[in-house]
Amino acid sequence: MTAYDPQNIFAKILRGEFPCYKVYENDHVFAFLDIMPRSPGHTLVIPKAPARNILDISAEDFAHVARGARTIAHAAMRAFKAEGIVVQQFSEPAAGQVVYHLHMHVMPRFDGVALLPPQSRKEDPAVLESHAAQLIAALQAG
Amino acid sequence: MTAYDPQNIFAKILRGEFPCYKVYENDHVFAFLDIMPRSPGHTLVIPKAPARNILDISAEDFAHVARGARTIAHAAMRAFKAEGIVVQQFSEPAAGQVVYHLHMHVMPRFDGVALLPPQSRKEDPAVLESHAAQLIAALQAG
Repeated sequence: MTAYDPQNIFAKILRGEFPCYKVYENDHVFAFLDIMPRSPGHTLVIPKAPARNILDISAEDFAHVARGARTIAHAAMRAFKAEGIVVQQFSEPAAGQVVYHLHMHVMPRFDGVALLPPQSRKEDPAVLESHAAQLIAALQAG
Repeated sequence: MTAYDPQNIFAKILRGEFPCYKVYENDHVFAFLDIMPRSPGHTLVIPKAPARNILDISAEDFAHVARGARTIAHAAMRAFKAEGIVVQQFSEPAAGQVVYHLHMHVMPRFDGVALLPPQSRKEDPAVLESHAAQLIAALQAG
């Protein structure tokens, strides 16, 4: 497997070198909105540890990412009145990975509404700001 | 959300009331092949704790499922000479969940080979037996 590249875009987001719509952070993980959401509120949970994907992350860091995804899932159900949640994580190009810092997708789902195809359109910044605020409020309400 | 139903098929598998192609087990999780695989070696990792999905599982049990999925992912790469891994978990009908005991899909991926659609065909039992044996051997080799 290719080694971890610290210049990937999510590493830059973690270092504050690139902006994002941050929604959550703890000692081990960081979460922000996907700017090309497949559903409203589509969030990415990433480890703070440098890991390309499931093949080089430690078991404990992957467990931290999963706990973070669960936290986001609960909040997203309330924030967006979602009816379901899809969690997805891709490792390596053969699996559809395009950014090489491990990320777990958390996508709110709604009855009868299909997910958009991956990377189909960039969301309006005002919508992303509003969704981030809604998710943060739901996370703070607990 | 609907309450957990202990008569779901994965609960029966956990209790040994229904057969499966078991590949892995520890104190917290159980893993077996999907009999309608979307890719060769498609495995399901489930918690031993009764949980419908991400909305009612404890953070610790979800972390255990994630650790189990990572263990399977590593072994599947070797067992099937896979080139990537997709991890997926669906919660509630709106998200495509069809069996109501939490399960994390671990799907080996190969360059240029699409996943089959969900539940598109039942695999030949001889193939499943062979895939289970390959995965168990890779898990034992560590």
